[in-house]
Amino acid sequence: AGDIKAGRAKATACAACHGIDGMSKLPEAPNLAGQTEEYLVKALNDFRTGERKNEMMSMMAKTLSDADVANLAAYYHSLGKQ
Amino acid sequence: AGDIKAGRAKATACAACHGIDGMSKLPEAPNLAGQTEEYLVKALNDFRTGERKNEMMSMMAKTLSDADVANLAAYYHSLGKQ
Repeated sequence: AGDIKAGRAKATACAACHGIDGMSKLPEAPNLAGQTEEYLVKALNDFRTGERKNEMMSMMAKTLSDADVANLAAYYHSLGKQ
Repeated sequence: AGDIKAGRAKATACAACHGIDGMSKLPEAPNLAGQTEEYLVKALNDFRTGERKNEMMSMMAKTLSDADVANLAAYYHSLGKQ
């Protein structure tokens, strides 16, 4: 499983749209706080491989390593359980 | 915008995985409670058109009308703001 603290550091790149607290800043960006970790890992990996496409996310996800994906998923999952 | 009450009625089809309260019952299914309405509409429409693919969701989404999509998005958005 990912490292929450490392995920928080990496999440500065996500915060403009998804919030550093995982609450969306834009209507087209989903909330991530408390999301299931498995879903977050799959979403990021699908954007990395191109299985899933989105103008912003396809670009952002390509900058992420496997560890980054695990850490970001752990971080956003850890936030504000609904 | 969608009709929350009609969305709740339709959501019985979603509840086994996403919960009638929008809290995931399966690690691979995302929480939906309080999710942004625009994101929910796009996700369902992307599954309907095949732009986004998932074994379960591609099948489920094909049963939905435009009104169903709007109503389901309104319903799940209305739940448990995180």
